[in-house]
Amino acid sequence: MKYGIAIFPSKPIQDEANAYRKRYDPKYALIPPHITLKEAFHVDDETMKGLIPELKKIANGIEPFKIHINKVSTFAPVTNTIYFKVDPIPQLEDMFTAMHEGKFPKNFKHTFVPHITIGQKLSDGEYADVSGSLQMKAVELEDTIDRFQLLYQLENDSWTVYETFVFGKEHV
Amino acid sequence: MKYGIAIFPSKPIQDEANAYRKRYDPKYALIPPHITLKEAFHVDDETMKGLIPELKKIANGIEPFKIHINKVSTFAPVTNTIYFKVDPIPQLEDMFTAMHEGKFPKNFKHTFVPHITIGQKLSDGEYADVSGSLQMKAVELEDTIDRFQLLYQLENDSWTVYETFVFGKEHV
Repeated sequence: MKYGIAIFPSKPIQDEANAYRKRYDPKYALIPPHITLKEAFHVDDETMKGLIPELKKIANGIEPFKIHINKVSTFAPVTNTIYFKVDPIPQLEDMFTAMHEGKFPKNFKHTFVPHITIGQKLSDGEYADVSGSLQMKAVELEDTIDRFQLLYQLENDSWTVYETFVFGKEHV
Repeated sequence: MKYGIAIFPSKPIQDEANAYRKRYDPKYALIPPHITLKEAFHVDDETMKGLIPELKKIANGIEPFKIHINKVSTFAPVTNTIYFKVDPIPQLEDMFTAMHEGKFPKNFKHTFVPHITIGQKLSDGEYADVSGSLQMKAVELEDTIDRFQLLYQLENDSWTVYETFVFGKEHV
């Protein structure tokens, strides 16, 4: 099965992101707005059973933390993805690292840039139209993150949550 | 916030349900195929914090169980919803009961009929066209259920998973 790991920010940020995604993100209906911690990776059910305790360990070892978003940015010229830039902080970096070492497949192509996609797969014309104005928008969002989610992908490319991992020792 | 509680069956059943939902269910993009345990209910964040331990207790008190689906049925003439009928079993009934008593809002309108919706909100013409042939389909699905999910609804009516509750004592 194809799995992925993501953080869903709280409802106000998801609603804000969806206002853009509705128009600019063809993946709008496939998954709620999220910060990807681990891109899609293929493992069989047995392997995943062995990874669940590792994910619990990662979640147990971290306390809830705040994230800040104050900028719209893009991955241009690599891709024309437009996103809410999440200020990089050690907790996010550490989770990313822990999910790509040891028993985990090392399936990353780029350095980790924490972000919430609000537009992607735009034509050159659309991208030229919207990227400038979006990057000029004043964005000022803050959120407390206290969990991440393991998801799997269905045949129609949508994602279903398999399990939630809440941060902190009390959940051991 | 508006919350709901549901079981997501495993991927093969979700894929099977989505093959129909894509054509017959306007809520196809808002939530993966599911068995509703508790319909949408409004509670504030504080109240929900008090309900989480209750949900953990319910999950801890139940062991994984099998479900069987061998029939397509409908709620006609009440609504023209078409669904995979899930054989009612005590575990499903007990969870439903526990989620509508004590601290939980008693927000049910009908007796509990465990099901996975595959079509709804059809026009009379569409319904007449498809309900007969769907009800004649040979359906034979089995699944093991070992968790339920608490979800909340976004402004665009889609649902995000807030937390997973895995069955069994080892997760206390």
